[in-house]
Amino acid sequence: MASIDLNSDLGESFGTWTLGDDDAMLSIVTSANIACGFHAGDPRTILDTCRAAADNAVRIGAQVGYRDLAGFGRRFIDMDAADLMADVLYQMGALDGLAQAAGSAIAYVKPHGALYNAIVTHREQARAVVDAVRTYDPTLPVLGLPGSVFLDEARDAGLRTVAEAFADRAYTASGELVPRRSEGAVLSDPSTVAERVLRLVRDGTIEAIDGSTVDVDAESVCVHGDSPGAVDMAFAIRKILFDNDIDTKAFV
Amino acid sequence: MASIDLNSDLGESFGTWTLGDDDAMLSIVTSANIACGFHAGDPRTILDTCRAAADNAVRIGAQVGYRDLAGFGRRFIDMDAADLMADVLYQMGALDGLAQAAGSAIAYVKPHGALYNAIVTHREQARAVVDAVRTYDPTLPVLGLPGSVFLDEARDAGLRTVAEAFADRAYTASGELVPRRSEGAVLSDPSTVAERVLRLVRDGTIEAIDGSTVDVDAESVCVHGDSPGAVDMAFAIRKILFDNDIDTKAFV
Amino acid sequence: MASIDLNSDLGESFGTWTLGDDDAMLSIVTSANIACGFHAGDPRTILDTCRAAADNAVRIGAQVGYRDLAGFGRRFIDMDAADLMADVLYQMGALDGLAQAAGSAIAYVKPHGALYNAIVTHREQARAVVDAVRTYDPTLPVLGLPGSVFLDEARDAGLRTVAEAFADRAYTASGELVPRRSEGAVLSDPSTVAERVLRLVRDGTIEAIDGSTVDVDAESVCVHGDSPGAVDMAFAIRKILFDNDIDTKAFV
Amino acid sequence: MASIDLNSDLGESFGTWTLGDDDAMLSIVTSANIACGFHAGDPRTILDTCRAAADNAVRIGAQVGYRDLAGFGRRFIDMDAADLMADVLYQMGALDGLAQAAGSAIAYVKPHGALYNAIVTHREQARAVVDAVRTYDPTLPVLGLPGSVFLDEARDAGLRTVAEAFADRAYTASGELVPRRSEGAVLSDPSTVAERVLRLVRDGTIEAIDGSTVDVDAESVCVHGDSPGAVDMAFAIRKILFDNDIDTKAFV
Repeated sequence: MASIDLNSDLGESFGTWTLGDDDAMLSIVTSANIACGFHAGDPRTILDTCRAAADNAVRIGAQVGYRDLAGFGRRFIDMDAADLMADVLYQMGALDGLAQAAGSAIAYVKPHGALYNAIVTHREQARAVVDAVRTYDPTLPVLGLPGSVFLDEARDAGLRTVAEAFADRAYTASGELVPRRSEGAVLSDPSTVAERVLRLVRDGTIEAIDGSTVDVDAESVCVHGDSPGAVDMAFAIRKILFDNDIDTKAFV
Repeated sequence: MASIDLNSDLGESFGTWTLGDDDAMLSIVTSANIACGFHAGDPRTILDTCRAAADNAVRIGAQVGYRDLAGFGRRFIDMDAADLMADVLYQMGALDGLAQAAGSAIAYVKPHGALYNAIVTHREQARAVVDAVRTYDPTLPVLGLPGSVFLDEARDAGLRTVAEAFADRAYTASGELVPRRSEGAVLSDPSTVAERVLRLVRDGTIEAIDGSTVDVDAESVCVHGDSPGAVDMAFAIRKILFDNDIDTKAFV
Repeated sequence: MASIDLNSDLGESFGTWTLGDDDAMLSIVTSANIACGFHAGDPRTILDTCRAAADNAVRIGAQVGYRDLAGFGRRFIDMDAADLMADVLYQMGALDGLAQAAGSAIAYVKPHGALYNAIVTHREQARAVVDAVRTYDPTLPVLGLPGSVFLDEARDAGLRTVAEAFADRAYTASGELVPRRSEGAVLSDPSTVAERVLRLVRDGTIEAIDGSTVDVDAESVCVHGDSPGAVDMAFAIRKILFDNDIDTKAFV
Repeated sequence: MASIDLNSDLGESFGTWTLGDDDAMLSIVTSANIACGFHAGDPRTILDTCRAAADNAVRIGAQVGYRDLAGFGRRFIDMDAADLMADVLYQMGALDGLAQAAGSAIAYVKPHGALYNAIVTHREQARAVVDAVRTYDPTLPVLGLPGSVFLDEARDAGLRTVAEAFADRAYTASGELVPRRSEGAVLSDPSTVAERVLRLVRDGTIEAIDGSTVDVDAESVCVHGDSPGAVDMAFAIRKILFDNDIDTKAFV
């Protein structure tokens, strides 16, 4: 039977400010990318999210990011590799301590926001993240964009790499994401998105923005939960997979 | 042969700002209370300090504090116990990740500054810290003030407790610290301080501020390294112990 | 014709995190206590809120607080008076620059959260806030709790003081707020609350929690907008005042 | 009589961490670029520095930077123009409030660190800074690198622009700074540097790194005070100017 991992960003509240419907998402996804406190996530929020993930048997991943609460980690910071490596290690350890307190542990790493985007091409920062993961625990998989410098460097360093696809994003004919600001880059209709995910999992293909068929090889699909519409979409994806006897389970 | 542990606060620089002579202190002390990022210590500083501690075979302790860089953790914050518990866990995990990357690991916990002072009497916050340590690793000792609510709660929770004395502080006839703002509360002459530490280690006594002799039972002595004068004092203590065949080694 | 000022906390979002329905509240209140960045409010949020306040002819007040984003300024910090004085000045200047960029200016000061509560009784911190306001602009009024040390100190320093009442809080027979954790301390029914505000404005009295009548002398009434229910209540207050020919306008 | 402005970065301590010898520098320079709290400078430090500047009749400029205490504002942040504009306004207002409390006021703006470097070429961020200054007070001069996009945009916006030279930096034959990482880019001998500044002020020329003579048109010279060697160099510059009857005074 076919299966797929669904991952989502969770634990992104901070103090009095809440973001996303974590409870709903924990009933949908199989992997929770939990914020580590640098772009979002105060310790209490993180601990509560780890406990809820453990209760739902959802695996915990370290969603490491730039130290930038005001920018939610969405702004590239041109930082030194040694500083970035230490920042990532710090976040991994912090989350792991809280995850273990919740009876779980971090099981993979997925960089967040501007860091995620930067290391698609920024080799020095990609290496810094890889270095941190390998130093922390060389058996931890990393989640990233297929074809990214990050996954290349991770593979070269002996890490297990996991390519992910995005449920709500359009792809070019060559299999890359259509830049977010382009017309049609982001999809919003739940049933359309659900159909695309079904096809991706079953056939390994997506209909590109020009109508052609493109191969996309992904072991995980990223779904969002930061708005009511996003949660509806996530539910639609979960349902279409269930209805088609496709299991959702964490990658190994 | 008699022996004593010497502990000191290290890793308290932040970014471009440096504090203390960590290199000198790592040649003197046997236990390094390393800042965890909340009152001081950016990840790069912490990692470098952990590496230097490991190189010097100095044990690493988690110097957990309030989230207050602007106040250096020296201002009491009236925070919720559940928040404090999570904050302490977060800091322990973060430091441990960096310590392990340096080939070491956290071996004990010593709260910092205003948190240290608060939990001498503040039972709710004391319990929150104890709770965090026990949850993280119930075999980790905690370092604190003899007679404090913190050590009482830690003992009740089954943690190993280690009482410390302060090299440069005057004591009352009943064995308590003379409040910092009182006349004569802080000692500054290296040889006087060194003699006091020698007597404390050899006889278990200190001359109180009124000239009487007071029993002080301590397994560790706290020395400072945040000024050139403080480092001189630390060296004097180390030397007098060496000259008197008293070993300095980490408590077990 | 009778009139009253309605004030509310606004501009309390931070980066990607939003809080409260500022647009709705700006159509209701006459004075906006805008966060200054220490407990909430990034500069962009503050600027946008100042512009919206100016567009709605709502007056801007500086909602100064402790430097504590993680705790939303709701945790007492035992800080030095000189530090607090400088922190308050900094926040006032920062908000004023943004308010002036929006074509307005700060017109009063209302401390936030734990600082507001602390200076009901904490004379040293109360004086530090007063000192900051007087230094910044001695013609600025301060808003606070009737009978508080803060208003006493402000009056002694020659500042104009404005006492406020709380729409949704129960009062004791002696005119003090029933502590928040007591049974019945917080009211939630919009029409009940609206009736109480009407009586307060018209007669200067409130029905105390024991059923007795208590005099409450307030020039401003604080209303909340941080939840849909709170906004409903604020609308109900505005409507009952309008229906009874009571003008809402900023205190002078 | 010829004259020149000397400017330096001051107020860059933060909480318990100190940086630079501000007292010494205030006896040397005529313009103090005071940190505004985003890359350095807590409010108390800023207030004390403003008071010391006022006591020494040294003019105060706003040293605005990226929000990045951990990186001391030395890391480029790819932020949105509207966010940057608001961040700069916030910092200007905050500093101005403290400067006015000290009996002075901000008299010019000089961006710091990575922001300074970015807006040599980054037009969008340059415009954001210009926009903030013009909005705050269109009569405030801005200090920057000759030929930078920042000064171009400022001039186009009607701001008074002031070009500065760097006392301790080598120049190319075309009048640009030799990149900091190149051999010979940074000069350290006080008398050599002092001679260069004298020549610059008297003749408007500097000896370029290739031995040729290059025209450098500067109304202000930047000197550093963040190390004992830097302070020595600053004193040497001040002395050679004094010995040659060149007045040091703030640009107008």
